[in-house]
Amino acid sequence: MNNALGRTVTVSAFDSVPDFARGIVRDVRVRWACEEIDQPYITHLLVARTPRPAQYLKVQPFGQVPALWDDNIQMFESGAILLHLAERDERLLPSEPATRARAISWILAALNTIEPPLTFLSILDFFVGEVDLAKQARPSIAGFARQRLQQLSAYLGDKDWLEAQFTVADLLMVCVLRSIRHTGLVREFPNLSAYQSRGESRPAFARALESHLQEVSAA
Amino acid sequence: MNNALGRTVTVSAFDSVPDFARGIVRDVRVRWACEEIDQPYITHLLVARTPRPAQYLKVQPFGQVPALWDDNIQMFESGAILLHLAERDERLLPSEPATRARAISWILAALNTIEPPLTFLSILDFFVGEVDLAKQARPSIAGFARQRLQQLSAYLGDKDWLEAQFTVADLLMVCVLRSIRHTGLVREFPNLSAYQSRGESRPAFARALESHLQEVSAA
Repeated sequence: MNNALGRTVTVSAFDSVPDFARGIVRDVRVRWACEEIDQPYITHLLVARTPRPAQYLKVQPFGQVPALWDDNIQMFESGAILLHLAERDERLLPSEPATRARAISWILAALNTIEPPLTFLSILDFFVGEVDLAKQARPSIAGFARQRLQQLSAYLGDKDWLEAQFTVADLLMVCVLRSIRHTGLVREFPNLSAYQSRGESRPAFARALESHLQEVSAA
Repeated sequence: MNNALGRTVTVSAFDSVPDFARGIVRDVRVRWACEEIDQPYITHLLVARTPRPAQYLKVQPFGQVPALWDDNIQMFESGAILLHLAERDERLLPSEPATRARAISWILAALNTIEPPLTFLSILDFFVGEVDLAKQARPSIAGFARQRLQQLSAYLGDKDWLEAQFTVADLLMVCVLRSIRHTGLVREFPNLSAYQSRGESRPAFARALESHLQEVSAA
């Protein structure tokens, strides 16, 4: 055990999800981070098709996954959990202040600048019942998503990772890019596509994905 | 000076914004946090109507505000900057681990769970040119936003703040709620409306808003 935490943490996950979501549920991010730093974890599986227990809503007010239990800490939001895990291990978050600040900036950029337009594209594609409306709205939402990816691509350039080394921000950004795998948008930017593959090639990611897929069935 | 930082930091802001955005631009969050902890700051004003200088895009790849310069640290994303400032002052982020973890969970919830549907409502209301499309799509997006506010309202209950004391998470959540002031959605939840007013009544918020309004003109 070479991580700073040592003790086992508990991560919540769903026992089933719709087919389009298998492999991209947000607990995958946390599993991946645990695998990168040899952090032992067990899962607390929620029955997706039933209302969340009141006890769970006290920890995770929106009924989403993941939540994390770590000793007397109860937290939620994948981004917050990633920060919590990463703060204890230089392999995910260097402690040098300027480098650390860039990584944390990118965590927030992944979640608040890149992910929202990608999520809305997915909502349009998977949840909007009125097909004509979805079809009409799609070009403008896709254009918004494309602009963000263009800016991300320009910043990444020919670097392997967003900053000088792999950090938890890259782990998260790769998961965010994976969330629109049903579209061809990322492939429009060859350096982003290569960046995503670089992340997905990490053995820790393969282990995380495998453990997720073993526990989640199609809803 | 009773903050841990002492030295002056620099925050980027726009010199002009469309009328609907005055008072809710994201640099207000950072100004507010600085005011809460007596952190001296100066602004770096960007000319909103011209392309961003290449030098700025190296710090803030999406051309947004705010970015922060603090000694040799260059960071971006309002959420990341708030974390950076709050980490140095117990008034914004208690250091006790379990309390700190809840506050950080709520920062991420504000930015990744609550803000995205509210932003899309604003995009629909202010940016979608095709009026019929916007009108058709609005009920489902408003319904999505309303569900999030309902869950937030249920968790807040009759408490003053999200957790046991005011933290940077409340500061951020109040700013997020302010972002849909053009709608009546928050007023549908009296406890959220009171929570927002409670935040906006803080003298530090008034100073932050005043400094923002003095520097930003209508675009």
